[in-house]
Amino acid sequence: MAVQKDEVTAAGSPDRLLALSDGIYAIAMTLLVLDVKVPDGLDEKAFRDAMGNLWPQVAAYGLSFYVLAAFWRDHRRLFLLARQLDTSLLRLTMASLGAIALLPFPTALLADYPDEPAAVSLYAIVIVVIEAFHMAIAAMLWRREHLQAEPISDALGHAVLWDLGTTAIVFGLSVPIAWLSPTAALWTWLLLIPAKITSGRGLRSAMRSSPTP
Amino acid sequence: MAVQKDEVTAAGSPDRLLALSDGIYAIAMTLLVLDVKVPDGLDEKAFRDAMGNLWPQVAAYGLSFYVLAAFWRDHRRLFLLARQLDTSLLRLTMASLGAIALLPFPTALLADYPDEPAAVSLYAIVIVVIEAFHMAIAAMLWRREHLQAEPISDALGHAVLWDLGTTAIVFGLSVPIAWLSPTAALWTWLLLIPAKITSGRGLRSAMRSSPTP
Amino acid sequence: MAVQKDEVTAAGSPDRLLALSDGIYAIAMTLLVLDVKVPDGLDEKAFRDAMGNLWPQVAAYGLSFYVLAAFWRDHRRLFLLARQLDTSLLRLTMASLGAIALLPFPTALLADYPDEPAAVSLYAIVIVVIEAFHMAIAAMLWRREHLQAEPISDALGHAVLWDLGTTAIVFGLSVPIAWLSPTAALWTWLLLIPAKITSGRGLRSAMRSSPTP
Amino acid sequence: MAVQKDEVTAAGSPDRLLALSDGIYAIAMTLLVLDVKVPDGLDEKAFRDAMGNLWPQVAAYGLSFYVLAAFWRDHRRLFLLARQLDTSLLRLTMASLGAIALLPFPTALLADYPDEPAAVSLYAIVIVVIEAFHMAIAAMLWRREHLQAEPISDALGHAVLWDLGTTAIVFGLSVPIAWLSPTAALWTWLLLIPAKITSGRGLRSAMRSSPTP
Repeated sequence: MAVQKDEVTAAGSPDRLLALSDGIYAIAMTLLVLDVKVPDGLDEKAFRDAMGNLWPQVAAYGLSFYVLAAFWRDHRRLFLLARQLDTSLLRLTMASLGAIALLPFPTALLADYPDEPAAVSLYAIVIVVIEAFHMAIAAMLWRREHLQAEPISDALGHAVLWDLGTTAIVFGLSVPIAWLSPTAALWTWLLLIPAKITSGRGLRSAMRSSPTP
Repeated sequence: MAVQKDEVTAAGSPDRLLALSDGIYAIAMTLLVLDVKVPDGLDEKAFRDAMGNLWPQVAAYGLSFYVLAAFWRDHRRLFLLARQLDTSLLRLTMASLGAIALLPFPTALLADYPDEPAAVSLYAIVIVVIEAFHMAIAAMLWRREHLQAEPISDALGHAVLWDLGTTAIVFGLSVPIAWLSPTAALWTWLLLIPAKITSGRGLRSAMRSSPTP
Repeated sequence: MAVQKDEVTAAGSPDRLLALSDGIYAIAMTLLVLDVKVPDGLDEKAFRDAMGNLWPQVAAYGLSFYVLAAFWRDHRRLFLLARQLDTSLLRLTMASLGAIALLPFPTALLADYPDEPAAVSLYAIVIVVIEAFHMAIAAMLWRREHLQAEPISDALGHAVLWDLGTTAIVFGLSVPIAWLSPTAALWTWLLLIPAKITSGRGLRSAMRSSPTP
Repeated sequence: MAVQKDEVTAAGSPDRLLALSDGIYAIAMTLLVLDVKVPDGLDEKAFRDAMGNLWPQVAAYGLSFYVLAAFWRDHRRLFLLARQLDTSLLRLTMASLGAIALLPFPTALLADYPDEPAAVSLYAIVIVVIEAFHMAIAAMLWRREHLQAEPISDALGHAVLWDLGTTAIVFGLSVPIAWLSPTAALWTWLLLIPAKITSGRGLRSAMRSSPTP
């Protein structure tokens, strides 16, 4: 709290935390493929059936790779705002990584049991939890000035939280829907497309700088 | 678009994207080994048979490690040309990584079912898709000057696209061949050796600098 | 020994060792999820039973992710004190990484056999071994001045060793308890909460600088 | 060839190759643990038997982690000598990584079939292959001055090659021995201890600088 803006200590550098994060994201993204497989030793007919039945696995791979890529992009954007860690920021980031590394489990569940409310809602819940950690990281960076790489305007703070919150709301809504109809919950997720386009536009205008990868 | 050449923002630095990419390549390359295995508890004769039947797995490991190493080299070369990311470049790179991380699946398929047209053509299709993403990255870097590390001459742009396109053409050709004869399709891939020597020579002369790892 | 303080050689830079360490930690943390799984093809009732029986796996995942995150934080803190490697420091770090990479095994054992003394005590023993390596690294850094990033006061040296030793003592105590009652041993681990709060307070006051992530 | 000493191009920087290498080493080291496991759902007696029969797996894990750590140390030392890549150096390094990533397979084989000549000799052969690639990298760095970080004396070149060659000779000798007696071949590997102490002493004196991690 009494730390001054120019006092960036080695203890506060986020470099190794970012290296660990990139490693965990890369591994979670790559482990997803282990669930896409066809057993060895099938005869020709069984092989073709197995290939034809592979779509849920491939779709779950694609969905979770996309989700992890989007979370990684948010993580990268958040840490562009940070130039220093403190204990709480380190803990929140570690907690978010614990949920990221868990994602291959609900992905496999969703591929194998797309008709089970528990499978669909668990997938959505893990995503809501990750978004909640990312929102807490954003709020902490916004309020603790000594952690900031450069001042975060209120407009930017709101836009970042709103962009993250949009996903949390859509997936959160799909949890009760999954218990009525798992298929309807999956369709709910398509709401993300218009929702993210809108919130992303707000974010880009708040960042007021053309390139915002 | 209105961004000026000297305005390299932190938001545009490709550093973390390269760290994530190196991680995904490293993991995809190492996961390939999980398909090379002999069951535990075999008696002496069964063990020797299992070892003797391991060649398709070892060959598929070697082929896919080589393919991933070649793609990584292309990825490294492409990003030597970039000094800044924008949203489209980030998305294309993520899409290419999604196909890279998937490669262990068609590799296992090819090892287990080298006589099935679907296995051989799926392997070739995933490679064509990765090449297509790499070509789109190259074209985007060539056309968007504000992303370039240094100006990309038309000769270099053409040579890079041609070098990437060569592989896409050879593997693309092998897809219909696989449905006539999977074995013939595998032999088609040997065309890559003369094709890459030729296109690589063009690339090196366009780069006009001796060391082009 | 005759090396002077300003003679930091490339051979002594810990950079690549830290990259390797971050990779090993990231992978060990992410591999833990491979033990959280529900078999494919269950009917509705069997699926719900399998989900209900998943708690030990999820709890073991959470525990080991937390343990690895805490060890990573210690590792990061220790290497903030180092600016140079020597052969012994490299060997000790490698030995600690060998125990870190092994942790997914006792984690799976603990999830599957929480009532077996051997499973519970093996988990505790691996943790004690990692702590012992970290204490040896700390002691070596404290005593070999030419390795230090900046001088380590005796107060800091003692506080670091005590903070690491606290965990070793709690887990060490739980090993004999596990042979009387595995469940009691698990409860013993809760002693870590007050113990680490106390030792962490000492550590922070010894570091006398507000941000100590 | 006509490249001058001060012309370090971005294309020649080994940075990303080292990041990829560290990733592959880290993953290969961590995947080894996947073979150390006890099946779920055993009764008490079967569990104790399974734990008692785990020693070959644990020993193979320890041996291969040690071997990979030693290879990583050699890799790090070799690239301390390099400041620039060329095509051949990149290819040799990739080939060495292909053999590194394969090592978990002969490790599993050695753990499951320590009495089979094929298992023991395959393990030794993979190690000889990796050493051969490392020796080729060393020889290339020694002879191509434009790749060197600083001049490599003939004494250093010889000492490095000899240090790497020692391991290749010991493991190479054990290959024919394995076909007479797999157990005798395992004992042969202990010759490495005196051999490496001797060659390491030569290496350290050639480097003539105290810290040589």
